[in-house]
Amino acid sequence: MSAEIICVGTELLLGDILNSNARFLAGELASLGIPHYFQTVVGDNPQRIQQVLQVARDRGSQLLIFTGGLGPTPDDLTHETLAQFFGVSLVEKPEILEDIAAKYAARGRKMAPSNRKQALIPAGADILPNRAGTAPGIIWQPEPGLTLLTFPGVPGEMHRMWQETAVPYLKEHGWGREIIYSRVLKFWGISESELAEKVSRFFEQSHPTVAPYASNGEVKLRLSARARSPQEAQSAIAPVIEQIKAIAGSDCFGSDEDTLASVVGRLLLESGQTIAVAESCTGGGLGQLITAVAGSSSYFMGGVISYDNQVKIGLLGVDPAVLAREGAVSATVAEQMARGVRDRLGTDWGVSITGIAGPGGGSEAKPVGLVYIGLAGSDGSADSFKYQFGALRDRDLIRHFSACCALDRLRRKLLR
Amino acid sequence: MSAEIICVGTELLLGDILNSNARFLAGELASLGIPHYFQTVVGDNPQRIQQVLQVARDRGSQLLIFTGGLGPTPDDLTHETLAQFFGVSLVEKPEILEDIAAKYAARGRKMAPSNRKQALIPAGADILPNRAGTAPGIIWQPEPGLTLLTFPGVPGEMHRMWQETAVPYLKEHGWGREIIYSRVLKFWGISESELAEKVSRFFEQSHPTVAPYASNGEVKLRLSARARSPQEAQSAIAPVIEQIKAIAGSDCFGSDEDTLASVVGRLLLESGQTIAVAESCTGGGLGQLITAVAGSSSYFMGGVISYDNQVKIGLLGVDPAVLAREGAVSATVAEQMARGVRDRLGTDWGVSITGIAGPGGGSEAKPVGLVYIGLAGSDGSADSFKYQFGALRDRDLIRHFSACCALDRLRRKLLR
Repeated sequence: MSAEIICVGTELLLGDILNSNARFLAGELASLGIPHYFQTVVGDNPQRIQQVLQVARDRGSQLLIFTGGLGPTPDDLTHETLAQFFGVSLVEKPEILEDIAAKYAARGRKMAPSNRKQALIPAGADILPNRAGTAPGIIWQPEPGLTLLTFPGVPGEMHRMWQETAVPYLKEHGWGREIIYSRVLKFWGISESELAEKVSRFFEQSHPTVAPYASNGEVKLRLSARARSPQEAQSAIAPVIEQIKAIAGSDCFGSDEDTLASVVGRLLLESGQTIAVAESCTGGGLGQLITAVAGSSSYFMGGVISYDNQVKIGLLGVDPAVLAREGAVSATVAEQMARGVRDRLGTDWGVSITGIAGPGGGSEAKPVGLVYIGLAGSDGSADSFKYQFGALRDRDLIRHFSACCALDRLRRKLLR
Repeated sequence: MSAEIICVGTELLLGDILNSNARFLAGELASLGIPHYFQTVVGDNPQRIQQVLQVARDRGSQLLIFTGGLGPTPDDLTHETLAQFFGVSLVEKPEILEDIAAKYAARGRKMAPSNRKQALIPAGADILPNRAGTAPGIIWQPEPGLTLLTFPGVPGEMHRMWQETAVPYLKEHGWGREIIYSRVLKFWGISESELAEKVSRFFEQSHPTVAPYASNGEVKLRLSARARSPQEAQSAIAPVIEQIKAIAGSDCFGSDEDTLASVVGRLLLESGQTIAVAESCTGGGLGQLITAVAGSSSYFMGGVISYDNQVKIGLLGVDPAVLAREGAVSATVAEQMARGVRDRLGTDWGVSITGIAGPGGGSEAKPVGLVYIGLAGSDGSADSFKYQFGALRDRDLIRHFSACCALDRLRRKLLR
């Protein structure tokens, strides 16, 4: 019993929009424990929609979930095409017409003639009501062992129809008896391949499964267990989590919804400490990450964006002679920035970033990607850490890495 | 001659990530004028990858673009599976091994043994170099009339490989003779439906086509023309752009790669003026947007992240009595913050943001989503602007809107 997602829409083929519907449905199917192995995107073209339908049926998928192509315009052809494929006619549903007319009336408008088309659904199909919009979907078993669900492409309408009608229908009809329960462990400061080597023995096992992935410097392990209850799944996953955490040590910074910033925030809250930031090349990006966490005002006081050297001198007390001698991107300046912002804002910790984000501004001695992170603590000391993020990474990524590494340095310090 | 996009990755089937790669490639194919009718997502499973390959070949697609499954871990199987499908062996490429080892060495680290796997590619395939990461792709004609391109799933690496190697290769090999040339106009401060009503007459025409879309407050119009040369397309598009700009006035802030921050930067550069920021609820997000523009150090001096009221008083000179009487989220505080940062950093302009990003901290008088933007100019005056972004928007979006609206206010001021 497996499902497929089929998204209809030429705008997806043109790259105009991200396919957030596929992601939503994929996550929903995973949490319901409904296996799902293929997603297809196809344009608003009857022949090609039929081809995709044929392929999906041939490979034995039993639940086909369509999004898109239910609108009032002539290029919205999903229901018409499904009816044609299974050799049935379209029938006009008076209850849909009434519903659309009522929705227009509520907005003080008259239904456009083109909306009449949305009341046509394949003979034998049931209406999948759309409370938020004019385009209803259908629930249809055109042949034994095959169920079709259709949704409009508008995400808000689709989500609501999914939750209100599709999920109860699927559960009632024997889908999703087993759930898939997943946990994600998150790592910083270790590459995907280094981590994979340390925990490779877990990749072979099937209950739970353990799979790695990585993006923008963050490495993740996803642990998934198929079970009849969350408790059963959790008890399969919990011991493996403990083992992996023991192996990875402090490289594992958290799980699931944790971010480096939320973990640092929790550590600061627990110890009753506060922080301030001094940012050069990140221009505010570190502060933004920290304040993305709701409640961060309990430990984050603020900071100084010292993009220009005069601001480093005037607001952070960086020594002009050091700036002249060692340059703004140097260990000493990073330390002075961190100490300066800590002093001026009266916090326990000061964290600074100074570097060359590129694409310009690099030299042989100080190439693009060279970044210093400074860390000033409550004992009055200050450390700095040198990074070479490499000239091949682009400006955005160098800045992102810089902010994440600054958080990670503080995290490791707070763990001690 | 049509292409298909095949994205390999179980994380896509689990709904963990949005398929931004499919969107990128779709947009690129459209702009190259390469027809593309299907996109497929499949997990890291050799049998199913082979099924998808079979389907794509059967329907006559001649260019198959794969993303994902090129990593060093055992579940990365794309090249292995392609080799199997076409009955060739994998060969180890010493130049790939050397390249990976050199990349590790540059970061002062040793190559992990598992990376060795990434040097294996199907016999007969050419290397599609990956300058930003360790996983190279391939360019391969396993049989006449069928070309395969593979890319890693990491978007930054994939984009670069596409631009640097794939596009020149495709053009050289007869793909994309007719081009689709597109321009995107960008708008801020007008809703999609308001704009659509003003320019609806353009939606009916076919050369160029004009289509609206919107995301996170930014509204866009995409103008596309199919033609044999960029010149031919441009001459169809240029007059329509002029007409739309005339209708939209200053709500149209730019086109194509422009951002609000880059447009503001250009206006500041042209007038030789400088700017500083004072941020409360955005926590550095405005500075980050401004400094995302390379070269912003010519006009952006820096700023103060005054998250805590003590920082507003100490570093920006906000009056404690005003803070006590009117609260941090008020017109007067916004104005004092803007004036304070302008004075202290000695810039022409000071821009400030203070608001309630939520989810906590709202009250009946000052609900979540209430934001004041302050603007202090070189004449010593300061203005403030009140926004109600609404409690239904989440913290991230309220912060994003705040930073964008601050830029937009300054932009409109600079235009005068």
